[in-house]
Amino acid sequence: MRQIVECVANFSEGRRVDVVDRIVEAIAGVRGVLILGVESDVDHHRSVVSFAGAPAAAADAAFAGICRAAELIDMERHRGQHPRVGAADVIPFIPIQNLNMEDCVRLAEGLGERVAAALDLPVFLYEKAARQPMNRSLADIRRGGYEGLRESLVSGAPPQPDFGPRRLGKAGACIIGAREALIALNVYLTTVDVGVARRVARAVRHSSGGLPHVKALGLLVKGRAQVSMNLSDYRQTPLHRVIEAVRCEAERCGVGIESAELIGLVPQEALLWAAAEYMQMDNFGLERVLEHRLRMMK
Amino acid sequence: MRQIVECVANFSEGRRVDVVDRIVEAIAGVRGVLILGVESDVDHHRSVVSFAGAPAAAADAAFAGICRAAELIDMERHRGQHPRVGAADVIPFIPIQNLNMEDCVRLAEGLGERVAAALDLPVFLYEKAARQPMNRSLADIRRGGYEGLRESLVSGAPPQPDFGPRRLGKAGACIIGAREALIALNVYLTTVDVGVARRVARAVRHSSGGLPHVKALGLLVKGRAQVSMNLSDYRQTPLHRVIEAVRCEAERCGVGIESAELIGLVPQEALLWAAAEYMQMDNFGLERVLEHRLRMMK
Repeated sequence: MRQIVECVANFSEGRRVDVVDRIVEAIAGVRGVLILGVESDVDHHRSVVSFAGAPAAAADAAFAGICRAAELIDMERHRGQHPRVGAADVIPFIPIQNLNMEDCVRLAEGLGERVAAALDLPVFLYEKAARQPMNRSLADIRRGGYEGLRESLVSGAPPQPDFGPRRLGKAGACIIGAREALIALNVYLTTVDVGVARRVARAVRHSSGGLPHVKALGLLVKGRAQVSMNLSDYRQTPLHRVIEAVRCEAERCGVGIESAELIGLVPQEALLWAAAEYMQMDNFGLERVLEHRLRMMK
Repeated sequence: MRQIVECVANFSEGRRVDVVDRIVEAIAGVRGVLILGVESDVDHHRSVVSFAGAPAAAADAAFAGICRAAELIDMERHRGQHPRVGAADVIPFIPIQNLNMEDCVRLAEGLGERVAAALDLPVFLYEKAARQPMNRSLADIRRGGYEGLRESLVSGAPPQPDFGPRRLGKAGACIIGAREALIALNVYLTTVDVGVARRVARAVRHSSGGLPHVKALGLLVKGRAQVSMNLSDYRQTPLHRVIEAVRCEAERCGVGIESAELIGLVPQEALLWAAAEYMQMDNFGLERVLEHRLRMMK
Protein backbone atom coordinates (compact mmCIF):
# COMPACT_ATOMS: atom_id res chain seq x y z
CA MET A 1 0.00 0.00 0.00
CA ARG A 2 1.54 3.30 -1.03
CA GLN A 3 2.13 6.27 1.25
CA ILE A 4 -0.40 9.08 1.07
CA VAL A 5 -0.15 12.40 2.86
CA GLU A 6 -2.78 15.11 2.82
CA CYS A 7 -2.01 18.83 2.87
CA VAL A 8 -4.62 21.47 3.72
CA ALA A 9 -3.00 24.73 2.67
CA ASN A 10 -4.42 28.13 3.68
CA PHE A 11 -3.75 31.08 1.37
CA SER A 12 -4.62 34.70 2.17
CA GLU A 13 -6.70 35.33 -0.94
CA GLY A 14 -10.43 34.70 -1.14
CA ARG A 15 -11.60 37.41 -3.53
CA ARG A 16 -9.51 37.42 -6.73
CA VAL A 17 -10.54 34.19 -8.47
CA ASP A 18 -7.67 34.38 -10.96
CA VAL A 19 -5.08 34.50 -8.16
CA VAL A 20 -6.61 31.44 -6.45
CA ASP A 21 -6.71 29.65 -9.80
CA ARG A 22 -3.03 30.30 -10.43
CA ILE A 23 -2.07 28.96 -6.97
CA VAL A 24 -4.14 25.81 -7.51
CA GLU A 25 -2.57 25.45 -10.97
CA ALA A 26 0.92 25.50 -9.44
CA ILE A 27 -0.04 22.79 -6.91
CA ALA A 28 -1.91 20.59 -9.41
CA GLY A 29 1.02 20.87 -11.82
CA VAL A 30 3.11 18.51 -9.69
CA ARG A 31 2.82 14.96 -11.00
CA GLY A 32 1.03 12.52 -8.68
CA VAL A 33 -0.86 15.16 -6.70
CA LEU A 34 -4.65 15.16 -6.56
CA ILE A 35 -6.55 18.33 -5.65
CA LEU A 36 -9.21 17.30 -3.13
CA GLY A 37 -10.90 20.65 -2.76
CA VAL A 38 -10.64 24.41 -3.15
CA GLU A 39 -12.73 26.62 -0.90
CA SER A 40 -12.61 30.41 -1.08
CA ASP A 41 -14.21 32.67 1.48
CA VAL A 42 -14.78 36.33 0.59
CA ASP A 43 -15.28 37.52 4.21
CA HIS A 44 -12.33 35.62 5.67
CA HIS A 45 -10.46 36.61 2.49
CA ARG A 46 -8.69 33.30 2.33
CA SER A 47 -8.76 30.06 0.36
CA VAL A 48 -8.19 26.55 1.57
CA VAL A 49 -6.63 24.18 -0.95
CA SER A 50 -6.66 20.49 0.04
CA PHE A 51 -4.54 18.03 -1.87
CA ALA A 52 -3.00 14.60 -1.42
CA GLY A 53 -0.21 12.50 -2.85
CA ALA A 54 2.99 10.64 -2.06
CA PRO A 55 5.12 12.53 0.52
CA ALA A 56 7.72 13.94 -1.90
CA ALA A 57 5.08 14.98 -4.43
CA ALA A 58 2.93 16.62 -1.75
CA ALA A 59 5.94 18.61 -0.47
CA ASP A 60 6.86 19.72 -4.00
CA ALA A 61 3.27 20.77 -4.63
CA ALA A 62 3.13 22.73 -1.36
CA PHE A 63 6.39 24.46 -2.31
CA ALA A 64 5.01 25.39 -5.73
CA GLY A 65 1.84 26.80 -4.15
CA ILE A 66 3.82 28.82 -1.58
CA CYS A 67 6.04 30.34 -4.28
CA ARG A 68 3.06 31.32 -6.42
CA ALA A 69 1.20 32.84 -3.43
CA ALA A 70 4.27 34.81 -2.31
CA GLU A 71 4.51 36.24 -5.80
CA LEU A 72 0.82 37.19 -6.20
CA ILE A 73 -0.41 38.20 -2.73
CA ASP A 74 0.61 41.43 -0.99
CA MET A 75 -0.01 41.19 2.76
CA GLU A 76 0.37 44.98 3.13
CA ARG A 77 -2.98 45.33 1.34
CA HIS A 78 -4.76 42.31 2.91
CA ARG A 79 -7.78 42.84 5.14
CA GLY A 80 -9.96 39.90 6.31
CA GLN A 81 -12.15 38.50 9.10
CA HIS A 82 -9.57 35.92 10.17
CA PRO A 83 -6.10 36.29 11.77
CA ARG A 84 -3.34 35.57 9.19
CA VAL A 85 0.38 36.20 8.92
CA GLY A 86 1.33 35.36 5.34
CA ALA A 87 0.37 34.90 1.70
CA ALA A 88 0.84 31.14 2.12
CA ASP A 89 -0.41 31.28 5.66
CA VAL A 90 -0.58 27.71 7.03
CA ILE A 91 0.69 24.48 5.45
CA PRO A 92 -0.06 21.36 7.53
CA PHE A 93 0.77 17.78 6.53
CA ILE A 94 -1.62 15.05 7.70
CA PRO A 95 -0.83 11.32 7.71
CA ILE A 96 -3.48 9.41 5.73
CA GLN A 97 -2.14 6.06 4.58
CA ASN A 98 0.94 3.97 5.35
CA LEU A 99 2.93 6.73 7.05
CA ASN A 100 2.89 8.21 10.52
CA MET A 101 3.09 11.57 12.26
CA GLU A 102 6.92 11.52 12.46
CA ASP A 103 7.08 11.16 8.68
CA CYS A 104 4.89 14.24 8.39
CA VAL A 105 7.07 16.16 10.88
CA ARG A 106 10.16 15.41 8.74
CA LEU A 107 8.27 16.53 5.64
CA ALA A 108 7.36 19.83 7.34
CA GLU A 109 10.95 20.44 8.47
CA GLY A 110 12.33 19.83 4.99
CA LEU A 111 9.76 22.11 3.37
CA GLY A 112 10.34 24.82 5.99
CA GLU A 113 14.09 24.99 5.32
CA ARG A 114 13.47 25.03 1.58
CA VAL A 115 10.90 27.83 1.74
CA ALA A 116 13.05 30.00 4.03
CA ALA A 117 16.09 29.57 1.78
CA ALA A 118 14.32 30.06 -1.55
CA LEU A 119 11.92 32.88 -0.64
CA ASP A 120 13.81 34.55 2.24
CA LEU A 121 10.77 34.62 4.53
CA PRO A 122 10.30 33.59 8.18
CA VAL A 123 9.01 30.03 8.67
CA PHE A 124 7.36 28.79 11.86
CA LEU A 125 7.11 25.06 12.60
CA TYR A 126 3.84 24.40 14.46
CA GLU A 127 1.80 21.73 16.24
CA LYS A 128 3.43 18.24 16.02
CA ALA A 129 6.39 19.77 14.11
CA ALA A 130 6.96 22.59 16.64
CA ARG A 131 10.49 22.95 17.99
CA GLN A 132 9.59 25.83 20.32
CA PRO A 133 6.86 25.02 22.85
CA MET A 134 5.36 28.47 22.29
CA ASN A 135 4.89 27.69 18.60
CA ARG A 136 2.79 24.57 19.15
CA SER A 137 -0.49 26.44 18.86
CA LEU A 138 -1.41 27.96 15.52
CA ALA A 139 -3.61 30.54 17.26
CA ASP A 140 -0.66 31.78 19.32
CA ILE A 141 1.50 32.33 16.24
CA ARG A 142 -1.31 34.08 14.37
CA ARG A 143 -2.71 36.07 17.28
CA GLY A 144 -1.33 39.50 16.33
CA GLY A 145 -1.86 38.92 12.63
CA TYR A 146 0.56 40.16 9.98
CA GLU A 147 0.77 43.59 11.61
CA GLY A 148 1.48 42.28 15.11
CA LEU A 149 4.05 39.76 13.88
CA ARG A 150 5.97 42.50 12.05
CA GLU A 151 6.41 44.28 15.36
CA SER A 152 7.26 41.22 17.47
CA LEU A 153 9.88 40.07 14.96
CA VAL A 154 11.63 43.43 15.37
CA SER A 155 11.24 43.58 19.17
CA GLY A 156 12.33 39.95 19.70
CA ALA A 157 9.08 39.05 21.53
CA PRO A 158 7.54 35.66 20.76
CA PRO A 159 6.61 34.12 18.40
CA GLN A 160 9.98 33.78 16.66
CA PRO A 161 10.55 31.71 13.49
CA ASP A 162 12.50 28.45 13.18
CA PHE A 163 13.95 29.28 9.78
CA GLY A 164 14.53 32.42 7.73
CA PRO A 165 14.89 36.11 8.52
CA ARG A 166 13.40 37.96 11.53
CA ARG A 167 11.59 40.49 9.38
CA LEU A 168 8.43 40.48 7.25
CA GLY A 169 8.18 41.31 3.57
CA LYS A 170 5.02 41.60 1.46
CA ALA A 171 4.59 37.80 1.39
CA GLY A 172 4.58 37.70 5.20
CA ALA A 173 5.51 34.53 7.07
CA CYS A 174 4.69 30.85 6.50
CA ILE A 175 3.52 28.44 9.21
CA ILE A 176 4.34 24.84 8.33
CA GLY A 177 3.58 21.76 10.43
CA ALA A 178 2.15 18.32 10.92
CA ARG A 179 -1.14 17.46 12.58
CA GLU A 180 -4.02 15.02 12.87
CA ALA A 181 -7.00 15.44 10.54
CA LEU A 182 -8.82 18.58 11.56
CA ILE A 183 -12.47 19.38 11.07
CA ALA A 184 -13.33 22.96 10.18
CA LEU A 185 -16.93 23.64 11.04
CA ASN A 186 -18.97 26.84 10.85
CA VAL A 187 -22.31 27.18 12.61
CA TYR A 188 -24.66 30.02 11.64
CA LEU A 189 -26.96 31.31 14.37
CA THR A 190 -30.46 32.71 13.91
CA THR A 191 -29.31 36.24 14.70
CA VAL A 192 -27.35 39.07 13.09
CA ASP A 193 -25.82 39.95 16.48
CA VAL A 194 -22.14 39.01 16.33
CA GLY A 195 -22.01 39.49 20.10
CA VAL A 196 -24.01 36.28 20.52
CA ALA A 197 -21.60 34.37 18.25
CA ARG A 198 -18.67 35.67 20.31
CA ARG A 199 -20.35 34.66 23.57
CA VAL A 200 -21.07 31.16 22.23
CA ALA A 201 -17.51 30.84 20.90
CA ARG A 202 -16.13 31.81 24.30
CA ALA A 203 -18.30 29.19 25.98
CA VAL A 204 -17.40 26.27 23.69
CA ARG A 205 -13.68 26.81 23.02
CA HIS A 206 -11.15 25.12 25.23
CA SER A 207 -8.99 28.18 25.91
CA SER A 208 -11.79 29.88 27.83
CA GLY A 209 -13.16 26.86 29.70
CA GLY A 210 -15.02 24.97 26.97
CA LEU A 211 -14.51 21.68 25.18
CA PRO A 212 -11.03 20.19 24.68
CA HIS A 213 -9.64 20.27 21.11
CA VAL A 214 -12.06 23.02 20.09
CA LYS A 215 -11.04 26.44 18.86
CA ALA A 216 -13.81 28.92 18.19
CA LEU A 217 -14.33 32.49 17.03
CA GLY A 218 -17.50 34.55 16.79
CA LEU A 219 -17.72 36.33 13.43
CA LEU A 220 -20.15 38.21 11.24
CA VAL A 221 -20.28 36.35 7.90
CA LYS A 222 -22.78 36.86 5.08
CA GLY A 223 -24.65 39.19 7.43
CA ARG A 224 -25.18 36.46 10.00
CA ALA A 225 -23.60 35.61 13.34
CA GLN A 226 -21.26 32.68 12.79
CA VAL A 227 -19.37 30.47 15.22
CA SER A 228 -16.28 29.44 13.27
CA MET A 229 -14.60 26.36 14.79
CA ASN A 230 -11.68 24.02 14.38
CA LEU A 231 -11.88 20.56 15.93
CA SER A 232 -8.40 19.12 16.29
CA ASP A 233 -9.31 15.71 17.72
CA TYR A 234 -12.75 14.43 16.70
CA ARG A 235 -12.21 11.17 18.56
CA GLN A 236 -11.84 12.95 21.90
CA THR A 237 -14.35 15.72 21.25
CA PRO A 238 -16.86 14.41 18.70
CA LEU A 239 -18.89 16.47 16.24
CA HIS A 240 -22.29 16.02 17.88
CA ARG A 241 -20.98 17.22 21.25
CA VAL A 242 -19.64 20.41 19.68
CA ILE A 243 -22.84 21.14 17.75
CA GLU A 244 -25.01 20.50 20.81
CA ALA A 245 -22.76 22.68 23.00
CA VAL A 246 -23.20 25.51 20.50
CA ARG A 247 -26.97 24.92 20.46
CA CYS A 248 -27.17 24.94 24.25
CA GLU A 249 -25.18 28.16 24.65
CA ALA A 250 -27.03 29.86 21.80
CA GLU A 251 -30.36 28.98 23.42
CA ARG A 252 -29.23 30.73 26.59
CA CYS A 253 -29.09 33.87 24.43
CA GLY A 254 -32.51 33.10 22.98
CA VAL A 255 -31.25 32.08 19.53
CA GLY A 256 -30.96 28.81 17.64
CA ILE A 257 -28.82 27.19 14.96
CA GLU A 258 -29.77 28.16 11.42
CA SER A 259 -27.35 25.82 9.64
CA ALA A 260 -23.85 24.39 9.76
CA GLU A 261 -21.20 23.93 7.11
CA LEU A 262 -18.03 21.93 6.73
CA ILE A 263 -14.96 23.60 5.26
CA GLY A 264 -12.73 21.18 3.41
CA LEU A 265 -12.98 17.46 3.99
CA VAL A 266 -14.12 15.42 6.97
CA PRO A 267 -13.01 11.90 7.92
CA GLN A 268 -15.83 9.43 7.35
CA GLU A 269 -15.63 8.03 10.86
CA ALA A 270 -16.42 11.41 12.41
CA LEU A 271 -19.76 11.50 10.58
CA LEU A 272 -20.64 7.85 11.19
CA TRP A 273 -20.18 8.33 14.93
CA ALA A 274 -22.15 11.57 14.88
CA ALA A 275 -25.08 9.74 13.27
CA ALA A 276 -24.87 6.94 15.83
CA GLU A 277 -24.80 9.41 18.73
CA TYR A 278 -27.71 11.47 17.44
CA MET A 279 -29.72 8.32 16.89
CA GLN A 280 -28.81 7.01 20.39
CA MET A 281 -27.39 3.82 18.88
CA ASP A 282 -26.45 1.46 21.67
CA ASN A 283 -24.71 -1.18 19.63
CA PHE A 284 -22.97 0.88 16.97
CA GLY A 285 -19.55 0.06 15.62
CA LEU A 286 -17.93 0.28 12.20
CA GLU A 287 -18.69 -3.43 11.74
CA ARG A 288 -22.36 -2.37 11.36
CA VAL A 289 -21.49 -0.57 8.13
CA LEU A 290 -22.09 -2.67 5.02
CA GLU A 291 -19.22 -1.17 3.00
CA HIS A 292 -16.81 -1.61 5.88
CA ARG A 293 -17.58 -5.33 5.99
CA LEU A 294 -17.46 -5.76 2.23
CA ARG A 295 -13.89 -4.44 2.17
CA MET A 296 -12.96 -7.77 3.73
CA MET A 297 -13.97 -9.48 0.48
CA LYS A 298 -11.76 -7.42 -1.82
CA MET B 1 -15.10 -5.45 -10.85
CA ARG B 2 -16.70 -8.69 -9.80
CA GLN B 3 -20.40 -9.15 -9.05
CA ILE B 4 -21.41 -9.16 -5.40
CA VAL B 5 -24.86 -9.91 -4.06
CA GLU B 6 -25.89 -9.70 -0.42
CA CYS B 7 -28.40 -12.02 1.22
CA VAL B 8 -30.06 -11.26 4.56
CA ALA B 9 -31.66 -14.55 5.57
CA ASN B 10 -34.18 -14.78 8.43
CA PHE B 11 -34.44 -18.09 10.28
CA SER B 12 -37.07 -18.89 12.92
CA GLU B 13 -34.65 -19.84 15.67
CA GLY B 14 -33.23 -17.37 18.17
CA ARG B 15 -32.83 -19.48 21.30
CA ARG B 16 -30.93 -22.70 20.55
CA VAL B 17 -27.39 -21.51 19.83
CA ASP B 18 -26.31 -24.88 18.43
CA VAL B 19 -29.08 -24.82 15.82
CA VAL B 20 -28.12 -21.29 14.68
CA ASP B 21 -24.47 -22.37 14.54
CA ARG B 22 -25.27 -25.32 12.31
CA ILE B 23 -27.27 -23.13 9.89
CA VAL B 24 -24.43 -20.60 9.70
CA GLU B 25 -21.98 -23.47 9.18
CA ALA B 26 -23.98 -24.68 6.18
CA ILE B 27 -23.98 -21.19 4.63
CA ALA B 28 -20.32 -20.45 5.36
CA GLY B 29 -19.36 -23.86 3.93
CA VAL B 30 -19.99 -22.63 0.39
CA ARG B 31 -16.74 -21.44 -1.21
CA GLY B 32 -16.57 -17.69 -1.90
CA VAL B 33 -19.24 -16.70 0.60
CA LEU B 34 -18.45 -14.31 3.43
CA ILE B 35 -20.64 -14.21 6.55
CA LEU B 36 -21.26 -10.51 7.30
CA GLY B 37 -23.20 -10.94 10.49
CA VAL B 38 -25.30 -13.25 12.66
CA GLU B 39 -27.85 -11.72 14.99
CA SER B 40 -30.10 -13.83 17.22
CA ASP B 41 -33.05 -12.44 19.14
CA VAL B 42 -34.51 -14.48 21.98
CA ASP B 43 -37.82 -12.59 22.13
CA HIS B 44 -38.43 -12.54 18.39
CA HIS B 45 -37.12 -16.11 18.41
CA ARG B 46 -35.36 -15.61 15.11
CA SER B 47 -31.87 -15.12 13.73
CA VAL B 48 -30.73 -12.95 10.87
CA VAL B 49 -27.75 -14.23 8.91
CA SER B 50 -26.21 -11.76 6.45
CA PHE B 51 -23.76 -12.98 3.86
CA ALA B 52 -22.34 -11.90 0.52
CA GLY B 53 -20.62 -13.39 -2.48
CA ALA B 54 -20.83 -13.92 -6.23
CA PRO B 55 -24.43 -14.61 -7.37
CA ALA B 56 -24.09 -18.39 -7.86
CA ALA B 57 -22.23 -18.85 -4.58
CA ALA B 58 -24.75 -16.75 -2.65
CA ALA B 59 -27.64 -18.81 -4.07
CA ASP B 60 -25.90 -22.08 -3.20
CA ALA B 61 -25.23 -20.81 0.32
CA ALA B 62 -28.86 -19.73 0.76
CA PHE B 63 -29.99 -23.16 -0.42
CA ALA B 64 -27.67 -24.88 2.06
CA GLY B 65 -28.98 -22.70 4.90
CA ILE B 66 -32.62 -23.35 3.97
CA CYS B 67 -32.06 -27.14 3.87
CA ARG B 68 -30.36 -27.10 7.27
CA ALA B 69 -33.08 -24.92 8.83
CA ALA B 70 -35.87 -27.12 7.40
CA GLU B 71 -34.20 -30.11 8.98
CA LEU B 72 -33.61 -28.59 12.44
CA ILE B 73 -36.56 -26.24 13.08
CA ASP B 74 -40.10 -27.43 13.78
CA MET B 75 -42.62 -24.66 13.15
CA GLU B 76 -45.31 -26.58 15.04
CA ARG B 77 -43.40 -25.80 18.24
CA HIS B 78 -42.30 -22.25 17.38
CA ARG B 79 -43.60 -19.29 19.42
CA GLY B 80 -42.14 -15.78 19.00
CA GLN B 81 -42.85 -12.04 19.08
CA HIS B 82 -42.64 -11.65 15.32
CA PRO B 83 -44.89 -12.96 12.52
CA ARG B 84 -43.19 -15.84 10.66
CA VAL B 85 -44.24 -18.61 8.29
CA GLY B 86 -41.26 -20.93 7.98
CA ALA B 87 -38.02 -22.34 9.38
CA ALA B 88 -36.11 -20.46 6.67
CA ASP B 89 -38.57 -17.61 6.78
CA VAL B 90 -37.35 -14.87 4.41
CA ILE B 91 -34.47 -14.98 1.90
CA PRO B 92 -33.92 -11.67 0.04
CA PHE B 93 -31.16 -10.96 -2.46
CA ILE B 94 -29.79 -7.41 -2.60
CA PRO B 95 -27.67 -6.00 -5.44
CA ILE B 96 -24.39 -4.61 -4.07
CA GLN B 97 -21.77 -4.44 -6.79
CA ASN B 98 -21.79 -4.78 -10.57
CA LEU B 99 -25.22 -6.35 -10.85
CA ASN B 100 -28.74 -4.97 -10.83
CA MET B 101 -32.17 -5.73 -9.42
CA GLU B 102 -33.17 -7.90 -12.40
CA ASP B 103 -30.15 -10.12 -11.78
CA CYS B 104 -31.33 -10.54 -8.18
CA VAL B 105 -34.89 -11.33 -9.33
CA ARG B 106 -33.55 -14.14 -11.57
CA LEU B 107 -31.48 -15.44 -8.66
CA ALA B 108 -34.58 -15.52 -6.42
CA GLU B 109 -36.64 -17.34 -9.07
CA GLY B 110 -33.97 -19.98 -9.58
CA LEU B 111 -33.57 -20.56 -5.85
CA GLY B 112 -37.35 -20.70 -5.35
CA GLU B 113 -37.83 -23.46 -7.90
CA ARG B 114 -34.90 -25.40 -6.46
CA VAL B 115 -36.17 -25.15 -2.87
CA ALA B 116 -39.72 -26.18 -3.78
CA ALA B 117 -38.48 -29.18 -5.76
CA ALA B 118 -35.87 -30.38 -3.28
CA LEU B 119 -37.74 -29.79 0.00
CA ASP B 120 -41.37 -30.02 -1.16
CA LEU B 121 -42.43 -26.82 0.58
CA PRO B 122 -44.40 -23.77 -0.60
CA VAL B 123 -42.26 -20.89 -1.90
CA PHE B 124 -43.50 -17.30 -2.20
CA LEU B 125 -41.70 -14.82 -4.45
CA TYR B 126 -41.90 -11.35 -2.85
CA GLU B 127 -41.10 -7.66 -3.36
CA LYS B 128 -39.19 -7.02 -6.64
CA ALA B 129 -39.39 -10.76 -7.47
CA ALA B 130 -43.17 -10.99 -6.83
CA ARG B 131 -45.23 -12.52 -9.66
CA GLN B 132 -48.55 -12.01 -7.85
CA PRO B 133 -49.29 -8.37 -6.93
CA MET B 134 -50.66 -9.55 -3.57
CA ASN B 135 -47.29 -11.11 -2.73
CA ARG B 136 -45.29 -7.93 -3.16
CA SER B 137 -45.45 -7.05 0.53
CA LEU B 138 -43.67 -9.30 3.00
CA ALA B 139 -46.04 -8.20 5.77
CA ASP B 140 -49.06 -9.36 3.75
CA ILE B 141 -47.61 -12.84 3.24
CA ARG B 142 -46.61 -13.16 6.90
CA ARG B 143 -49.68 -11.52 8.41
CA GLY B 144 -51.42 -14.69 9.67
CA GLY B 145 -48.15 -16.34 10.69
CA TYR B 146 -47.52 -20.05 10.27
CA GLU B 147 -50.90 -20.94 11.72
CA GLY B 148 -52.88 -18.57 9.51
CA LEU B 149 -51.01 -19.61 6.37
CA ARG B 150 -51.78 -23.26 7.04
CA GLU B 151 -55.49 -22.44 6.91
CA SER B 152 -55.37 -20.11 3.90
CA LEU B 153 -53.41 -22.66 1.86
CA VAL B 154 -56.18 -25.19 2.46
CA SER B 155 -59.01 -22.71 1.87
CA GLY B 156 -57.45 -21.21 -1.24
CA ALA B 157 -57.49 -17.66 0.15
CA PRO B 158 -54.46 -15.47 -0.51
CA PRO B 159 -51.53 -15.56 -0.13
CA GLN B 160 -50.81 -18.49 -2.43
CA PRO B 161 -47.29 -19.74 -3.28
CA ASP B 162 -45.49 -19.45 -6.62
CA PHE B 163 -43.79 -22.83 -6.36
CA GLY B 164 -44.33 -26.04 -4.37
CA PRO B 165 -47.32 -27.65 -2.64
CA ARG B 166 -50.33 -25.84 -1.19
CA ARG B 167 -49.89 -27.32 2.27
CA LEU B 168 -47.54 -26.68 5.19
CA GLY B 169 -45.22 -29.21 6.82
CA LYS B 170 -43.08 -28.72 9.92
CA ALA B 171 -40.58 -26.56 8.00
CA GLY B 172 -43.37 -24.18 6.98
CA ALA B 173 -43.01 -22.00 3.87
CA CYS B 174 -40.13 -19.99 2.44
CA ILE B 175 -40.40 -16.40 1.18
CA ILE B 176 -37.71 -15.60 -1.39
CA GLY B 177 -37.20 -12.32 -3.19
CA ALA B 178 -35.10 -9.39 -4.32
CA ARG B 179 -35.05 -5.94 -2.77
CA GLU B 180 -33.09 -2.79 -2.13
CA ALA B 181 -30.92 -2.62 0.96
CA LEU B 182 -33.20 -2.52 3.97
CA ILE B 183 -32.48 -1.01 7.35
CA ALA B 184 -33.82 -2.85 10.38
CA LEU B 185 -34.04 -0.47 13.29
CA ASN B 186 -35.40 -0.95 16.80
CA VAL B 187 -36.15 1.97 19.07
CA TYR B 188 -36.61 1.38 22.81
CA LEU B 189 -38.93 3.78 24.62
CA THR B 190 -38.63 4.93 28.22
CA THR B 191 -41.66 2.90 29.28
CA VAL B 192 -42.65 -0.71 29.91
CA ASP B 193 -46.10 -0.05 28.42
CA VAL B 194 -46.27 -1.92 25.12
CA GLY B 195 -49.43 0.06 24.33
CA VAL B 196 -47.30 3.17 23.80
CA ALA B 197 -44.99 1.29 21.41
CA ARG B 198 -48.01 0.08 19.46
CA ARG B 199 -49.45 3.58 19.28
CA VAL B 200 -46.13 5.00 18.06
CA ALA B 201 -45.76 2.18 15.52
CA ARG B 202 -49.25 2.90 14.18
CA ALA B 203 -48.37 6.58 13.82
CA VAL B 204 -45.07 6.13 11.96
CA ARG B 205 -45.77 3.18 9.65
CA HIS B 206 -47.00 3.82 6.14
CA SER B 207 -49.89 1.35 6.17
CA SER B 208 -51.72 3.37 8.82
CA GLY B 209 -50.96 6.86 7.57
CA GLY B 210 -47.31 7.32 8.55
CA LEU B 211 -44.05 7.60 6.63
CA PRO B 212 -43.56 5.94 3.22
CA HIS B 213 -41.25 2.89 3.15
CA VAL B 214 -41.60 2.35 6.89
CA LYS B 215 -43.03 -0.76 8.50
CA ALA B 216 -43.40 -0.74 12.27
CA LEU B 217 -44.61 -2.92 15.10
CA GLY B 218 -44.95 -2.19 18.80
CA LEU B 219 -43.48 -5.00 20.90
CA LEU B 220 -42.40 -5.79 24.45
CA VAL B 221 -38.72 -6.80 24.26
CA LYS B 222 -36.31 -7.23 27.20
CA GLY B 223 -39.08 -5.86 29.40
CA ARG B 224 -39.21 -2.58 27.49
CA ALA B 225 -41.57 -1.09 24.93
CA GLN B 226 -39.91 -1.35 21.54
CA VAL B 227 -40.83 0.09 18.16
CA SER B 228 -39.44 -2.46 15.69
CA MET B 229 -39.08 -1.00 12.20
CA ASN B 230 -38.01 -1.84 8.68
CA LEU B 231 -37.00 0.99 6.36
CA SER B 232 -37.20 -0.20 2.78
CA ASP B 233 -35.96 2.96 1.05
CA TYR B 234 -33.61 5.09 3.14
CA ARG B 235 -33.14 7.57 0.27
CA GLN B 236 -36.85 8.45 0.21
CA THR B 237 -37.46 8.17 3.95
CA PRO B 238 -34.17 8.81 5.71
CA LEU B 239 -33.11 7.52 9.11
CA HIS B 240 -33.26 10.82 10.98
CA ARG B 241 -36.84 11.46 9.85
CA VAL B 242 -37.94 8.07 11.16
CA ILE B 243 -36.19 8.49 14.52
CA GLU B 244 -37.59 11.98 14.98
CA ALA B 245 -41.10 10.84 14.03
CA VAL B 246 -40.85 8.15 16.71
CA ARG B 247 -39.59 10.72 19.22
CA CYS B 248 -42.41 13.12 18.40
CA GLU B 249 -45.14 10.50 18.73
CA ALA B 250 -43.62 9.06 21.90
CA GLU B 251 -43.52 12.52 23.47
CA ARG B 252 -47.24 12.86 22.85
CA CYS B 253 -47.59 9.88 25.20
CA GLY B 254 -45.22 11.47 27.70
CA VAL B 255 -42.29 9.14 27.00
CA GLY B 256 -38.91 9.49 25.30
CA ILE B 257 -36.39 7.39 23.38
CA GLU B 258 -34.10 5.33 25.60
CA SER B 259 -31.89 3.96 22.83
CA ALA B 260 -31.92 2.61 19.31
CA GLU B 261 -30.26 -0.39 17.70
CA LEU B 262 -29.49 -1.53 14.20
CA ILE B 263 -30.13 -5.15 13.27
CA GLY B 264 -27.77 -6.41 10.60
CA LEU B 265 -25.85 -4.01 8.42
CA VAL B 266 -26.57 -0.48 7.28
CA PRO B 267 -25.39 1.20 4.08
CA GLN B 268 -22.78 3.84 4.86
CA GLU B 269 -24.61 6.54 2.95
CA ALA B 270 -27.68 6.26 5.19
CA LEU B 271 -25.57 7.15 8.23
CA LEU B 272 -23.59 9.92 6.52
CA TRP B 273 -26.81 11.64 5.50
CA ALA B 274 -28.30 11.18 8.96
CA ALA B 275 -25.27 12.93 10.47
CA ALA B 276 -25.53 15.77 7.96
CA GLU B 277 -29.25 16.23 8.66
CA TYR B 278 -28.86 16.19 12.43
CA MET B 279 -26.03 18.70 12.18
CA GLN B 280 -28.07 20.90 9.79
CA MET B 281 -25.32 20.74 7.19
CA ASP B 282 -26.20 23.04 4.35
CA ASN B 283 -23.47 22.09 1.96
CA PHE B 284 -23.11 18.36 2.58
CA GLY B 285 -22.39 15.85 -0.15
CA LEU B 286 -20.32 12.69 -0.36
CA GLU B 287 -17.52 14.76 -1.92
CA ARG B 288 -17.03 16.24 1.60
CA VAL B 289 -15.90 12.85 2.87
CA LEU B 290 -12.12 12.41 2.84
CA GLU B 291 -12.17 8.68 2.12
CA HIS B 292 -14.65 9.16 -0.71
CA ARG B 293 -12.27 11.58 -2.42
CA LEU B 294 -9.20 9.46 -1.80
CA ARG B 295 -10.79 6.56 -3.64
CA MET B 296 -10.17 8.62 -6.78
CA MET B 297 -6.43 8.14 -6.21
CA LYS B 298 -6.48 4.34 -6.02
